[in-house]
Amino acid sequence: MHDLVISMLQQRGVSLSDMAVLVLEMQQKYVPLNYDIALEHVKKVLEKREVQNAILTGIAIDQAAEADLIDEPLLSILKNDDALYGIDEILALSITNIYGTIGLTNFGYLDKAKPGILAELNSKTSGKVNTFLDDIVAAIIAAACSRIAHSYESNA
Amino acid sequence: MHDLVISMLQQRGVSLSDMAVLVLEMQQKYVPLNYDIALEHVKKVLEKREVQNAILTGIAIDQAAEADLIDEPLLSILKNDDALYGIDEILALSITNIYGTIGLTNFGYLDKAKPGILAELNSKTSGKVNTFLDDIVAAIIAAACSRIAHSYESNA
Amino acid sequence: MHDLVISMLQQRGVSLSDMAVLVLEMQQKYVPLNYDIALEHVKKVLEKREVQNAILTGIAIDQAAEADLIDEPLLSILKNDDALYGIDEILALSITNIYGTIGLTNFGYLDKAKPGILAELNSKTSGKVNTFLDDIVAAIIAAACSRIAHSYESNA
Amino acid sequence: MHDLVISMLQQRGVSLSDMAVLVLEMQQKYVPLNYDIALEHVKKVLEKREVQNAILTGIAIDQAAEADLIDEPLLSILKNDDALYGIDEILALSITNIYGTIGLTNFGYLDKAKPGILAELNSKTSGKVNTFLDDIVAAIIAAACSRIAHSYESNA
Repeated sequence: MHDLVISMLQQRGVSLSDMAVLVLEMQQKYVPLNYDIALEHVKKVLEKREVQNAILTGIAIDQAAEADLIDEPLLSILKNDDALYGIDEILALSITNIYGTIGLTNFGYLDKAKPGILAELNSKTSGKVNTFLDDIVAAIIAAACSRIAHSYESNA
Repeated sequence: MHDLVISMLQQRGVSLSDMAVLVLEMQQKYVPLNYDIALEHVKKVLEKREVQNAILTGIAIDQAAEADLIDEPLLSILKNDDALYGIDEILALSITNIYGTIGLTNFGYLDKAKPGILAELNSKTSGKVNTFLDDIVAAIIAAACSRIAHSYESNA
Repeated sequence: MHDLVISMLQQRGVSLSDMAVLVLEMQQKYVPLNYDIALEHVKKVLEKREVQNAILTGIAIDQAAEADLIDEPLLSILKNDDALYGIDEILALSITNIYGTIGLTNFGYLDKAKPGILAELNSKTSGKVNTFLDDIVAAIIAAACSRIAHSYESNA
Repeated sequence: MHDLVISMLQQRGVSLSDMAVLVLEMQQKYVPLNYDIALEHVKKVLEKREVQNAILTGIAIDQAAEADLIDEPLLSILKNDDALYGIDEILALSITNIYGTIGLTNFGYLDKAKPGILAELNSKTSGKVNTFLDDIVAAIIAAACSRIAHSYESNA
């Protein structure tokens, strides 16, 4: 399952490296960190069953919308990533919550500032629907940041 | 949109009356209540945009699974309503949260005790997939119970 | 910290055994389980930092209310465990969420059915304020049930 | 109760105007908005029972910590606004959730970027403890932004 979700993310344009880079950027001001450690934490987040389920479900909805397999009015809501549609964010919450509520702040920040891969996912080019994926990727990054914060404290 | 979600629930086997009956059963021990008032509160819950989005999304996933339009392994997880799959419950949370956290307890109780229509939705007969729908209906009922509790206090 | 929260729960009338008994009762119909294993899972839940913070905070509020150190109108709301006060439940959510959303259903059920120690905590005798504690204990039990469900699957 | 929470916020250094200014700053790029309308939405958020309960509880904890009425180790955690203490954020969630999950992103952003009054609350000068208050104020602002987004759509 771990390999599967990594491969699904890759097919949707998101690499482990894309996420590790943002984790490093977010956390290196707080703790000593390098790219390899950041990458390790991203991988650990992706081992969690709840995270895998959120990824599978979010990508399935995005793909169904892309293939016009969903009825209106939901189809248009998904294709336009309607600002009042909050289901993508609540799905992402199931990822950030796993390492405690401290992930929430980083998630919200990433979702609004949209650095790196998050801007790309949000650019709505070429018929892609990433309504769920952008929130899921922000949530994985936020969860990895929380995991790092917790692990540094445990070792202190 | 209000009429649409009512009609979608109806097509999936859930009437306003099925829900009003359970709201009445849950809340009549706490406040003076009758069927018509319970029904009114259910309808008001269904006017909320966040609730409508959760209904549209949950039913869309159930239908896509029913029609085998979702890839494995998610397809089997959805068809079996896997006990470790918690995305259906987190979607339901977006409904119960609208009237405050007091809806949470009623939601959990309904989801476990499964009275009335909830038992029917959960019976997994005839190829139907109701993995999301049963949680959504429990959440609508729980939200209506919260709405009643709040409205009685405001009037006191 | 682990020993401290166990000792604080004990002082407020809640033993590890009280919780393990309910975990056993809730989960033994689903997986092979005995008292010692149930107890082990309760202890593991109490090792989590987020759980410890919720326990420390909830008990601190209950104690401050008991000692009349909180201003009105919050003091009366806490002493009466007002039905529309949902902050105790949202604090409990930070515990149940740690093992995924599947803990939510068990939490809601326990909070409503109030078996064993939960009924005692809720009896409001002798000037004790357990407004937060009863929800926290229900959440610990629900989290332990989720932990068991996840661990049995991983081993399957 | 509405007047009480406004007065309590004022005593802790937060005016309606401090919040309205940030609401305006956050939302004016999306919808036509002025200060008076922003202020009106902040006031409406403060009429919600769940919001009032979160404010009363958060300020009570901050004040109890300030007056050394809380035992260690929680007292130090609260005084230092420990980065791994997430209870303040989960309390804030009960506010942002009321207008749907779209409030989450704005909350996370405000909590990290800390514009205006949020920077002041976080400055930890003069023995004040604002561990809960800064998250609560960010949540009220985020909720008002969500309320505006919903109201503009309803009128469209």
